[in-house]
Parts: sequence; C-alpha cells; structure tokens
Amino acid sequence: MDRIKVGVLGATGMVGQNYIRLLSNHPWFEVAYVAASPNSAGKRYADAVQGRWLMAEPIPEAARGLIVGDANMVGLAKGKCKLVFSAIEAEKDVVRRLEEEYAKEGFSVVSNNSAHRSTPDVPMIVPEVNWEHTALISTQRKRRGWNQGLIAVKPNCSIQSYVTPLYALIRAGYHIEAAFVTTMQAVSGAGFPGPASLQMIDNVIPFIKGEEEKSEQEPLRVLGKLVNGEVVAEKSLRISAHCNRVPVIDGHTACVSMKFAGPKPSLQDIIRIWSEFTSEPQKLNLPSAPRPPIIYRGEPDRPQPRMDRDAGKSMAVTVGRLRPCNVFDYRFVGLSHNTVRGAAGGAILTAELLKAQGYF
Amino acid sequence: MDRIKVGVLGATGMVGQNYIRLLSNHPWFEVAYVAASPNSAGKRYADAVQGRWLMAEPIPEAARGLIVGDANMVGLAKGKCKLVFSAIEAEKDVVRRLEEEYAKEGFSVVSNNSAHRSTPDVPMIVPEVNWEHTALISTQRKRRGWNQGLIAVKPNCSIQSYVTPLYALIRAGYHIEAAFVTTMQAVSGAGFPGPASLQMIDNVIPFIKGEEEKSEQEPLRVLGKLVNGEVVAEKSLRISAHCNRVPVIDGHTACVSMKFAGPKPSLQDIIRIWSEFTSEPQKLNLPSAPRPPIIYRGEPDRPQPRMDRDAGKSMAVTVGRLRPCNVFDYRFVGLSHNTVRGAAGGAILTAELLKAQGYF
Amino acid sequence: MDRIKVGVLGATGMVGQNYIRLLSNHPWFEVAYVAASPNSAGKRYADAVQGRWLMAEPIPEAARGLIVGDANMVGLAKGKCKLVFSAIEAEKDVVRRLEEEYAKEGFSVVSNNSAHRSTPDVPMIVPEVNWEHTALISTQRKRRGWNQGLIAVKPNCSIQSYVTPLYALIRAGYHIEAAFVTTMQAVSGAGFPGPASLQMIDNVIPFIKGEEEKSEQEPLRVLGKLVNGEVVAEKSLRISAHCNRVPVIDGHTACVSMKFAGPKPSLQDIIRIWSEFTSEPQKLNLPSAPRPPIIYRGEPDRPQPRMDRDAGKSMAVTVGRLRPCNVFDYRFVGLSHNTVRGAAGGAILTAELLKAQGYF
Amino acid sequence: MDRIKVGVLGATGMVGQNYIRLLSNHPWFEVAYVAASPNSAGKRYADAVQGRWLMAEPIPEAARGLIVGDANMVGLAKGKCKLVFSAIEAEKDVVRRLEEEYAKEGFSVVSNNSAHRSTPDVPMIVPEVNWEHTALISTQRKRRGWNQGLIAVKPNCSIQSYVTPLYALIRAGYHIEAAFVTTMQAVSGAGFPGPASLQMIDNVIPFIKGEEEKSEQEPLRVLGKLVNGEVVAEKSLRISAHCNRVPVIDGHTACVSMKFAGPKPSLQDIIRIWSEFTSEPQKLNLPSAPRPPIIYRGEPDRPQPRMDRDAGKSMAVTVGRLRPCNVFDYRFVGLSHNTVRGAAGGAILTAELLKAQGYF
Repeated sequence: MDRIKVGVLGATGMVGQNYIRLLSNHPWFEVAYVAASPNSAGKRYADAVQGRWLMAEPIPEAARGLIVGDANMVGLAKGKCKLVFSAIEAEKDVVRRLEEEYAKEGFSVVSNNSAHRSTPDVPMIVPEVNWEHTALISTQRKRRGWNQGLIAVKPNCSIQSYVTPLYALIRAGYHIEAAFVTTMQAVSGAGFPGPASLQMIDNVIPFIKGEEEKSEQEPLRVLGKLVNGEVVAEKSLRISAHCNRVPVIDGHTACVSMKFAGPKPSLQDIIRIWSEFTSEPQKLNLPSAPRPPIIYRGEPDRPQPRMDRDAGKSMAVTVGRLRPCNVFDYRFVGLSHNTVRGAAGGAILTAELLKAQGYF
Repeated sequence: MDRIKVGVLGATGMVGQNYIRLLSNHPWFEVAYVAASPNSAGKRYADAVQGRWLMAEPIPEAARGLIVGDANMVGLAKGKCKLVFSAIEAEKDVVRRLEEEYAKEGFSVVSNNSAHRSTPDVPMIVPEVNWEHTALISTQRKRRGWNQGLIAVKPNCSIQSYVTPLYALIRAGYHIEAAFVTTMQAVSGAGFPGPASLQMIDNVIPFIKGEEEKSEQEPLRVLGKLVNGEVVAEKSLRISAHCNRVPVIDGHTACVSMKFAGPKPSLQDIIRIWSEFTSEPQKLNLPSAPRPPIIYRGEPDRPQPRMDRDAGKSMAVTVGRLRPCNVFDYRFVGLSHNTVRGAAGGAILTAELLKAQGYF
Repeated sequence: MDRIKVGVLGATGMVGQNYIRLLSNHPWFEVAYVAASPNSAGKRYADAVQGRWLMAEPIPEAARGLIVGDANMVGLAKGKCKLVFSAIEAEKDVVRRLEEEYAKEGFSVVSNNSAHRSTPDVPMIVPEVNWEHTALISTQRKRRGWNQGLIAVKPNCSIQSYVTPLYALIRAGYHIEAAFVTTMQAVSGAGFPGPASLQMIDNVIPFIKGEEEKSEQEPLRVLGKLVNGEVVAEKSLRISAHCNRVPVIDGHTACVSMKFAGPKPSLQDIIRIWSEFTSEPQKLNLPSAPRPPIIYRGEPDRPQPRMDRDAGKSMAVTVGRLRPCNVFDYRFVGLSHNTVRGAAGGAILTAELLKAQGYF
Repeated sequence: MDRIKVGVLGATGMVGQNYIRLLSNHPWFEVAYVAASPNSAGKRYADAVQGRWLMAEPIPEAARGLIVGDANMVGLAKGKCKLVFSAIEAEKDVVRRLEEEYAKEGFSVVSNNSAHRSTPDVPMIVPEVNWEHTALISTQRKRRGWNQGLIAVKPNCSIQSYVTPLYALIRAGYHIEAAFVTTMQAVSGAGFPGPASLQMIDNVIPFIKGEEEKSEQEPLRVLGKLVNGEVVAEKSLRISAHCNRVPVIDGHTACVSMKFAGPKPSLQDIIRIWSEFTSEPQKLNLPSAPRPPIIYRGEPDRPQPRMDRDAGKSMAVTVGRLRPCNVFDYRFVGLSHNTVRGAAGGAILTAELLKAQGYF
C-alpha cells in the first residue's frame, strides 16, 4: 500500500526534527515535503539542519535530499502532501493565520503550536481521552467553508503526565473535583536552546512562563463534552499547577493529589482501572498507539524520567506511588515523554486517528 | 571572654563535618571534643577523616589534632565540654539511649537525629518559631531526675523551607487550615554516599523513605502550643507532602499551596508580613541568627537552590512566587539550605538559644 | 535452529543485568541459567533483582522465572548451558579460581572481570582487533588438560574508545610509537552504586583507581602478536593515560594524540582507513558486530557521549576531530559505550566469535 | 585613604557582573562608573541588569544606583574614573579600537577581551608569572604617543590552570620542552547563555571554538622574555591542547604531561617548588593575591572543580596527582576558577600590580 504523503512545517527546529525522526519508517505516512523559514528555503534538508541537528540518530536518509520550502508560501506544498504537521515557531497571530491558510487550501493541519488551542472550532486532542472531539471538524469546515482542510491541535506537553490517568478514573464513573499538580519538567520542553546549562546544573527553576495556566486550563477542555457541535469545557474540576524546570533531558514528572466528589474508588480499584485502561487508539490499532497506554509500576520509587520515559515507545504514561493523601483523597506520580508523547509523537497519533476516522 | 567548650558526636560523618566547619571561629563555642565510632577512636581527627572529608574548605586547624573519642563511652567527654552536638548515625534505639546517657551525665545534648523527635518531653526547635518550647526542658529534667543535662532536637531538613513562612502568617493572626507541599530535595540531604550518580544524572527520584511522614507531622509539633508543660501539636492544620530527590547538591525547594480558614491576608499583606518578620533569635542577637530570617524575592523565577541557598549565611529561608492558587488561596515557593539551616546550622542556632535562655 | 543455552554468573549485578538485557532475543544464544551469590540462590530471578534492577527496559520475560543458582557451585550449571558469561564481583583470586573451575568442568567462560587479563594462556579479545588470539585456547587446553572448556576475557572498558582506531591504522601499515590518551569516563563504568551524586554533580573526579595502568598496558597485549602459541605484547608503542570520571551516564570519551614512526598517513588517509575499516566479526557476520565498526563524524564537535554512544547498536566506536597535533603528529577524539561495547556487549561479541571459530 | 575610582565597560554582561561583585568592598578600587551598550545607557545599573543578574550574591548596594553610560562614548567616562576594566563583548576590531580610544584619552585599560592579546606592545599578564612584562607599557606609550593611558590584557581562562605551575618549575631552573594538556572546562567559561542544558546534561562536548589555539600559544607569550622593550615569545616549548566542555559550573581542570630537556627535577623537588612558590603579587602584598598562589594537594583524587575552585578566594591554582608519565617525564592535574582567577579576578590582580608598579 502506498504511504500517505505528509509535510512538516518548521521542519528544521527541534520539534520539526523530532517529526522527521519519528516519521522515518512510519507505516502510513511518508515525509514528502519539508518547509521552514525563508532562510532555509531552497536548501537540501541535510544542509539546512547542518550543525543544528539535535537528534542522536542521524538524519533519516529519505529526508536528507528533500528541498526545504518556504513555510509562508502555502502554494509550495500543493501536490506534494495531503497533511502537514505544524511545528512553526512564530508569533501566535502569524501561526494561527498560516495554519488557517494551509487548511483553506485543503491541507489537514495537525499542530503542536499553542496558537489554536483555544479556538472554539479547533479540536485539541489527546487521542486516548477525547477522540470524539474530532467531530468539531464538521463545525469547523461548515463555519469556515473548507471542503477538505482541517486543523487539529495537541495540548501542552505538561498535561500528558496526568490527564490520561485522571480521565481513566472519570471514565470509570468517578468524579474528580480538584487536583493539585506539581510538575518537574525536562529542559527539552523549552525547545532549543532552552535554559542555559549555567542555569540548570545543580539547580531547579521554579517557573516556566505560561505553563501553569496551560496546565490548569487545557485539561478542562480536553475532558470537556461535545454538545451541539461545540466542546463545553469541564467545569466541575479545578486544577492547581506548580510548574518547575529540572535538570532532566526528557520526561515530565507530575506529583498529583486528587479529591473525589461522591463515591471514591479504593486504591485497588484505581490500580485496576489504570492497568486495564485501553481506548480508541488501541481499538483502532493506530501504529503509534502505546499498548497499554497507562503503565502502573508498583516499586516505591517509580516512575523516574530516565527509567520510564521510553516506555511504550515513549508514548505511554507511567504512573506509580498511588497512596492516600493527607489532605485530598489520593496522590500519585505520573510521567510521560515530553518531546514524543507530549509533542511530535502525540501529534502523529492524532493524525493517525484522523486518518482512521476518515477525515482525510 | 572564654568560649564554651562543646563536643561533636558522630564528628567524622557528613553532618559531623559540617558542625566542625560551622563551629570553626564561632564566637561563643569552641570544639574541644570529637567522638565517633570505635573505628575512629584514638586517631587524630585529621587522620580519622582522611579520604572522606567532604567539605570544600580544608579541615579547620583547631580540629585537626583533636583525638577522637569513642562516642559510646560517655565518660570520655567528661571535663572536656558542657554541650554535645549529636550527629550519631545508628539505630534509633541506640541513638535515643546514648543521647539520654549524655544528658544524664550532665551534658546538654542538641541533636540532629530523628530518634527523639517524638519524645514528649524533648523539645523539637525551630528557633524563630517555637523558642518557647524549650520550657519542656524543665519537665524533662524533673521527670528524668536530671540536674543539668538536657536534650533538644531539631526537626527534619525538609520542613525548614516552609514552616517559618507559614508560622509568620499564623503569628500575624491568620489561620491556615491546609497546605499542599511538594519538595524537590538536594542529594546532600541523604548524607554520604546518598543517591548514586547513576540514579540522579538526568533524573528525578519521586520518593524519599520516611520523608513525607516527617514533612507532614513535624510541622504540627513545631507549631504546637505549650500547655501545662507539654507540647500539644497543632491539630487544625493538615499538610500533604510529596517529597522528591532532584540533582541538586544543596538546597531544598518547596512548592506550597495554602488554604486559610477565616479572614485571608492579601498578597501584599503576606509579602509585608514575611519581609518584616523577625523573631526571638534576632532579638537575642544570636550569632547564627539570619537577619532577616525570611527573604522575599520578587523576581518571577526565584528562589532557586544554587542562587539562594547561601542567603543569610545559609540560614535564611528565601520565598518567592507568591500568587493566588487555583484550588487553595495562595501558593509560593520556599527554599532553605538543608545541610546548614536544615541540619548543623539549625542545631547550632538552637544551642545558642538554649545558652541565651540560660539552660546551660 | 535451536539456540545455544548460556548462563550468566553474577547475573544480579549491573553487568549481569546488562547481559540479561542484551541476550534477550539473541539469535544464537538463550539464557538458560543464572547464578549469583548465595544470598540470591534459590530465588526467582525477578525476585532476586527486585528493587535493584537498573535497566530502563523491564526484566525480560524469559529471565523472570529462572531460579538463581549459587555461582560458587559449579555443578549446578551442568546440563543447563555450554557457555557462561562471567560477571562475578569478588576478589581476583576468587574469580580466577572460580572461572577455572567452570572451564575445567567443560564450560566455555567469557569474562568481563579483570582477574584473568594477564594470565598468559588466556586470550584477551577485542574481536575486530585480535580475533586470532583465540588460538591461545589450544595452548590453554593443552597446558591445563581441558578438553572442551575455555576461558576468554575482554579488556577494560576504557581502551575501547581508542584501541580499534589505532589498530585500523596499524593494520594499514603505519607504525604508531606513542599515544597520549585522556579519558572522560561515564559513571556507569564504576558499577553500582559507583560515585555518589554528591561527588559528581557540578564536578569532575580526575582519578579512577587502577584505570590508568589498565589503559596503558592492556592495549599492548591486545595489539600483540601470536608467536609459538603465546601472545607477545606490542613493545614499540608507549601509551600515557590520564583517566577522569565525569557526570555522564554512559559513554567513555578519549582525547588521543598519536605519533608515528616512519611514514605518516595524511589526514585523508586516516579518515579513509577508518571509514573503510571492517574486520573478522563483520566478515563472519556475527550478530552483534557493528557495521561499520568505526564511524567517522566530520562535525567539529563530535563525538559526544549522549549523541554517539548508541551508534551501531552501542557497539561501534565513533571518532571525530581528527587534526594535526602541536606536539605529536595527529590527534582525535574517540567514543564508545562502556557498558555495552566495553562490557557485556563486547563479551557477547567475543562469544559469537568463539562460536563461529568452532571453539564450542 | 581614598579609593581609586574605576569603571567597568560591558558592566551588564556576565564578566562585567563579576567585576561589580568582586570590586564591591575592594580596598583600593571603587566602582564609580559603569558602561554598556546603548540599550542599557541611561538606566540605573540595577534596572539595566534586571532579570539578567547572574551572580548568587545580590547586586552590591553601591552599584545599584549608578547610571549606565554608553561604552562607545569615551568622553562619558572622563572625570569619573582613572582605570577601566574592559569586558566589552563585540567584534575584535571594535573592541581593539575602543580600548585604544580609552587609553588615548588617558585611561588605564585592563581587558578581559582577546582582541589585544597578540598586539606586540600590549602586555598580556599573569601577575605571578610575567609581572615584568608591564615594562612594555613604556614602549606602548612611546609608540602611540600616550602620556598616561595604557592597555594591559589578561590571557585566556584555560591556561591559568597550568601556566603558573609550569612557570614555577621553569623559574626554579628546569627547562620544559613539551607539554600535553587536556582541559575539562566549565560552562561559565562560555559566558551567558553559553551551552544549552540540552547539550550538557549527561554529556561532554569535546570542542570549544578557538580555545585550543589560545591554550597552545598564549602561554608562550606569557612565558616570553622582555628583550629591548619587546616580548619575545618562548620558542623552546611546544604545547598540545585538547579542550573539552564538561557539565561543571565553575572551574577549569587540566590534565598535563610534561617533558623536560636537560636535568629533571624529582617528584619531591616539584612538590617543594610548587609548595614554596611565591611571586611578585605576594611580595607586593596585592589585595587579590592568593597566598599561596599554588596549592599542592596530596590526596589521590584532587583537585576537583567543586571542591578546589574557591581555594585562595578563588585566585589560587590547585595542583595534584603529580606522578611519572608513561611517555613524557611527569604528569599532574591543575585547576583554577575560570570566572575569577581566569577572568575578572585575574584582571583586578593585574590592575593592582599596575598600581603598585606606579603605572597609574
């Protein structure tokens, strides 16, 4: 079977490079187009990333010779691909407009950028949690007069370590009314160059600009209900997030306390629910879907970023240390790989979902 | 004026070395006796710590030639010192009994060990918070028939980053009913060798044995009231603590959310209360008392362990990022130096307090 | 085809765990026996390593249920495997004697331990360099009266980053008379626990006990000639090694300057020789043989441990920065994965070589 | 006595901040003027460094209110100070010209920049080694027609860990003909931001642009002779330097092998020479002169950056591990604090020397 041709916008940056790496040998998708800023346009991809290729693996052979297009010139992608992964780094207004132009021209756009995360008719997807929110695309197309094109986004990397574990409990019938989250986030989450080594060696930075707001609000939209073609954010859950940067390369860790309203599961119930959890991406057999999506580890000192970030091909969420909380009901530690599950890998899984659902 | 002769029990270990370092050039105290395990007994101190001196500064001249005594033989300390700092590492039963023997023999014992932290007639002191709890010593002496001797302990290093800031608000008349604390603790807190570099480079360990219990319970005793010669632990405050080990040499960071019962201070009130806070050690002009004891930093990304741990000669608590909490009322980040404020330095300040109060 | 049953002695330690990990899904070998100290004997392997499994991947299913034998009781291995990988940690005398007992009982012993590295009739093998030294086994068997058994060892992990690159030039006809080597070695090279994080964060330790001697002498034996059934160490090469421990998890880096006697290759010659280098393991198509065994990277700042240690399934040596030396002729930087190429992986490749050569 | 008023050019950058920090409470000098780029000009110093003050200590009170001048406008410094420390970051041509303008206007310029390091009439000073080279200033003034002004520079931070130890042996009458140096340099040496934490955690970068050339050539000029008012670089010594960046905050470590021509000192001779070494800055009692300038540590694993960088108020060089070399005669490890001894502190010591010698 022929693979579907896809493009990567912002292909020379760190997230873009991760797309190129993860899409190499993808069973459904083939990178047929790469685009970046005008500086890189016209160069071979291998030349454009010369001296700033950040992946440990070498540049995939298939990508080396691709000629980089100017991401601002939407027409250049025409005929080369049906779907574009957007890893554009620019002002939000610019990103928003550009992604819309691609969609208008018929491309499916799956974006890592935060620009469209609060646009009402753009679905923000964690495939295991709100796969049904892709139904927003009908609203989107109707409202905007697009036939084929679409925009879907993935949420912030910081929420991936706890939103799926919380969702699994909600889906099992429990109501969570409040959660305290303290994250210890990897430096790769800041992109390149990100924090200087002068700032991170022997140190913790207890602040990441804009991150606490995203970590508190985005889960509510992801956990929201689809009502009359709109997503209504979850209102009965309040989250408080403290976000910290720690000297870890990859892997965001979250310490979470949660309070239930109504009946509470037992510790055994929770472990069972997480261990048995499976969802739409697994049912659809999507190539990037982790099996299982949630891994519960019983050791007293797990999950740990260096040990657990690559579980499930870096797409699983690992949880551990479930225990009673002295103020709320229970607490646990969650962990996910921020540049795979939380960025390019999550977007690829979303694209696979859209494909399986017939959106392109 | 002649300095008071003091001894250090467990003088060859990491905390013991910190005592030796911090007491060098102390205006009131002079290290006149050092003791350790039978292995080290009989050696010159410099020889006993040969190859395992962990401080960056060289061994103080005055300590080099001291002959190490066997810490188990209480009689050896007689005539050499009036007060002993206990940094003994052994089973709790052993530590408890040994500290009692020293006290029985007339020594004032100030201990870093957790063995006596829940003994009802032993005061557990944070000098800025519960300097009055030393009154327990009368009960202690009466009950045990000691004339001169006494035991006082300092609480766990993890609580020092938040207990004084919380106390300052309580003393100002506000009632805190619950607090969420997530700590990111330095590796030196585990003593030597502590976590292997294999475990800490590019990693976080979300677990420290026994630490969450101490971090939740010890503040309640420190904040307790002295009633009829007993300390009644604070009952109206609940604390939930998640404790993590991060790749930081020194400095424990705590992310704290707090909920008030009754009237709430404003953000400005809190900053003012912290900034103006001063307490008994400052009033008594104790040599190791930080001035001010709480430093509020207004930058968005402080405190940070490498930047702030040495504030106030490593004895101050630095707080920052005070802001509203999405679930509780307010949240902030606190930081203190765990091996100085949280260990040897805190114990020395306690000894200074006891001296100023006339206990020895 | 049935896989050959092998055993791992010292299977619960860090090197032993690496064997278990690397041998899982090996095309030729199947772990059928594990042994360790009497403490672990009798337990299921999964239970024996409970709480001290150091690999990121979970314990391989096939190994979990194996019952751990007492490594001191050679008879226990009988009938269970033909070859044992020795990762025993004990006094050298003990290791030497125990490995000889296994060999005497007919087992092929491939060892990671340094005990037998200077035993004249025991080949010390880097398969790409001195695959012919296995001929020593005939001498060994004759001298010791062994029919089937044998002992072969691998050299120290520190030399793997430069011995193959030097050998490639020697094989191409150039004579190297002196080399300066400064290593920056990963903490995993010290085993578990190895250096404390207190010692390695924000630090370098310019000393590793015994390492400089090994790094200077072992290459001479590996590069030696087989004369009359004996290995005569290379005498015309002198190596000076400075060995340092740096805060890196895996991957030993070596800065090397080399001086030629007689005709010197050009820079281009050297790059060509390295790039085209292939040897016996590649010719024999051994499963663990990296292809190519030496990777030359032209970027100005490579190799780097985190980026290059996993090249060639962690079995290749990556070299870079070839340039003239201001004192000797040329200098370069070499890098290899110390716990794979330099330990368990190198031993497995040696076992594959022995199998291909018909020694068992 | 009134302190001499000095200025700091480039005062807002990292080296500039170090000047401000180190000059606070200096017994001879008082910071009376600060200058930076036009962006900062006109602001209070505290405002200009708002959000980018990198020192752990707070901004010194005396500097907070200084109004930042435009460093390009030499006239602004007039009447405010006699000496300027140059930490300007710009193209070399720009720096060279600007420093000359200040000197022409009568200012003594002591520079950290590499722009003038190879200008024949500009002395490049390590005060303990070539204090006599300041005599070049007469040549400089004569040639350029300057009455009062002068330019002196300090060499690269990387050489400070070995040039003084080598010089001590040369001064004692031994001739060193070759040295191999491998450095492991701290990230602060690259300025801010310097290497990204993504590049340095769990990694080594075996390359620093331009550093090996400086590390090989600058020592020859520093060790050169003053002949007829010119410095003739040492020609009989060849140095080979491999320069590496390691995850260390401060402190450059150098592994050095040295070869003598003619009579060789014994190991004891060398230790004695280093331990007894003292030089002009100590004789002149300069305020920043370390006493002793060279510290020999006998432990097998020292010096280490975190333990030894602050020796002698961060101005001493610590050496250790002196032992025979397998290729050259002897080898050792040297260490110095790169942002103090190797940058601002070294320049301040040079200014003190110039003052004591009567140059301003």
